[in-house]
Amino acid sequence: MSNLLLRNVRPMAGDNCDVLIKDGKIAGFGQFAPEPGMPVEDGGNSIVIPGLIDAHTHLDKTTWGMPWHENNRAAVLRERIDFERENRSAIGIDPHRQSMRHAIGLAAHGATHIRSHVDIDPTHGLSIVEGVWETREKLRGIIDIEIVAFPQSGVMVMPGTTELLDEALRQGCEVLGGIDPCGIDRDPKGQLDIIFALAVKHQRPIDIHLHEAADLGAFTMELIFERIRAHGMQGKVAISHAFALGMNDYIRVGKLIDELVALDVAILTTGAPSAAVPSVMRLKEAGIRVGGGCDGIRDTWGPWGQPDMLDRAKIIGMKNGLRKDRELEHVLHIVSQGGADVMQIEGYGLKVGCTADLTLLTGETLAHAVVDIGPRPLVVKGGRITARQGQAVVDMP
Amino acid sequence: MSNLLLRNVRPMAGDNCDVLIKDGKIAGFGQFAPEPGMPVEDGGNSIVIPGLIDAHTHLDKTTWGMPWHENNRAAVLRERIDFERENRSAIGIDPHRQSMRHAIGLAAHGATHIRSHVDIDPTHGLSIVEGVWETREKLRGIIDIEIVAFPQSGVMVMPGTTELLDEALRQGCEVLGGIDPCGIDRDPKGQLDIIFALAVKHQRPIDIHLHEAADLGAFTMELIFERIRAHGMQGKVAISHAFALGMNDYIRVGKLIDELVALDVAILTTGAPSAAVPSVMRLKEAGIRVGGGCDGIRDTWGPWGQPDMLDRAKIIGMKNGLRKDRELEHVLHIVSQGGADVMQIEGYGLKVGCTADLTLLTGETLAHAVVDIGPRPLVVKGGRITARQGQAVVDMP
Repeated sequence: MSNLLLRNVRPMAGDNCDVLIKDGKIAGFGQFAPEPGMPVEDGGNSIVIPGLIDAHTHLDKTTWGMPWHENNRAAVLRERIDFERENRSAIGIDPHRQSMRHAIGLAAHGATHIRSHVDIDPTHGLSIVEGVWETREKLRGIIDIEIVAFPQSGVMVMPGTTELLDEALRQGCEVLGGIDPCGIDRDPKGQLDIIFALAVKHQRPIDIHLHEAADLGAFTMELIFERIRAHGMQGKVAISHAFALGMNDYIRVGKLIDELVALDVAILTTGAPSAAVPSVMRLKEAGIRVGGGCDGIRDTWGPWGQPDMLDRAKIIGMKNGLRKDRELEHVLHIVSQGGADVMQIEGYGLKVGCTADLTLLTGETLAHAVVDIGPRPLVVKGGRITARQGQAVVDMP
Repeated sequence: MSNLLLRNVRPMAGDNCDVLIKDGKIAGFGQFAPEPGMPVEDGGNSIVIPGLIDAHTHLDKTTWGMPWHENNRAAVLRERIDFERENRSAIGIDPHRQSMRHAIGLAAHGATHIRSHVDIDPTHGLSIVEGVWETREKLRGIIDIEIVAFPQSGVMVMPGTTELLDEALRQGCEVLGGIDPCGIDRDPKGQLDIIFALAVKHQRPIDIHLHEAADLGAFTMELIFERIRAHGMQGKVAISHAFALGMNDYIRVGKLIDELVALDVAILTTGAPSAAVPSVMRLKEAGIRVGGGCDGIRDTWGPWGQPDMLDRAKIIGMKNGLRKDRELEHVLHIVSQGGADVMQIEGYGLKVGCTADLTLLTGETLAHAVVDIGPRPLVVKGGRITARQGQAVVDMP
């Protein structure tokens, strides 16, 4: 772990000072003379925050850096899933190379941690996860990657998937995923019983995709709540997307939120522009842990997205109609501390003793930095410089 | 007007060729030898399209390039309007300087035409319009600016505004604006009768802001339709925002669309991320003229936005849930030809004889170019180069 004297920065847009980093941890804020042999960096009076976090993405799916993937297919969720599973190899979406590109892009834009769902299905077995594991090892010290064993194609409708998830958890996937137990799997009791049993067996947290909207999604959330209570998994479950919380029924959503609070369920949002999404300000008021994610970027599902959590902060902020400085500050919180709260990252933060995972931002204030979206002047991971002016220190393959 | 041989480009992402420009107009596509004294540019195999068009913006409002404007005020429309009118001078939002920055930013990102609403109210008289007129003169040959005389603060609730609009049209504003006859003015018959009478008197088109949603907005649209019929203003009216068309009632919206078609009313959309917006694909199927606009960027209303019509294309595309290549091509159409259709710009297009207003884009295909949002390699206005690699040939003040 590295030593570094980072001079001339403004922690959380506050007063200018130096940040002293020893053995990869923040050792102090103030004015320091460099110790012999200690590298010194001038932060140019930039804002410094703890590293950005992409807490919901799909490292294994992007076509970034590949020839343009033309897509005039129907936009049906099941068809998107099947097309990808059946064609990803032929298209040339190599899980290792593409996850390297995606993760390095995120690091270049200031991210220091990723939670990535990675597809597991009988067609590919664990080969896709293995490709992303290779990326995780190569990028150790650049960006931390947590992997969700993700049954993208379903569990009940895809025999053999349960055993693969079991094996993936045994081999070290940190989190267990799930997806639309009604919409995709057509058997909510079936999928959720299996997912919770596997999570209990391996003592791993759950992060389930829930695109199901309105009453259907609320029903599935209730089934999840029942199983959290039954298995004592309070504080160990996250729901990604949670579009049901975007339904136009203030009172019904309030009841769901009460349960999220009681069971300490976390929410991950991508601010999906064309869907009904949870109100991040309402979740904040309730005290729910909320992180943000880029989701897929430029994949066979759709062409949009950038490997940049400030780009995503803009999407989340605009979707939620946020305009006040205080609200913009909260959006920045979601794509940094919020993700750490969901992933329960130890030592994350901008305090003495925290790991020195830092991102420098341009702007006068935190709100200004969120909307300005300029290249990040500097990114630091464990005290080591990992990117400068939007360029990572490692090249994309 | 200028001559130029633009080599090595792909018109609308088609086959590579040269574009010959004489006297500011497109003289031919093919392979040409430069004539003596004719400037030659290499387009680097970029895509070339006709210039991007921002058909709904507010050049007079931005704080771009000024100190960060902190905003923790309530997000009530009437309060935003009154705060801006009462404080814009004190904040230092000089209409000329700020409209220069905004317009040059748009030109740097490939726009060749702007329709800007400009505030007219009894507090400022025509002084704000005069500032933007000065910008229009200074930027002649860089970007064309069409000005909408815009009663931002209302007509009926702001005595003296009617006379100012009359004078603004007399002095040369090309279009007459209006705003939320119910929501802002509390007297829909009153405002609309005045607006239509002024438009008829000066023989000018109308472009009215309509944030009113659902049934209220539909009612106002019906009042507008009645007056278009009464005054024979078919083809001369545009509705900006038109959130009522985003209401969740397919049949009711269909009836409104039938009237838009019958009366050739144009729609301008900004893809407002937190509102219910018109479906651009449904409007396309109906054959309605649709343009796009950046709306306000970083002003006292809100912090978001860039002076970049590809950034806006992304917002419109994501909001509409568009993912197919054919759909992305339509989004590009909206921010180029669509704007020209609404503004009825003569000589616009990528054909022999059209004005040589051209924007180069990076990307393999048009769809790729829309999501890539790289710096525009080159922008040409009337055959003259106005921007290179995202930098305009004129400096921002």
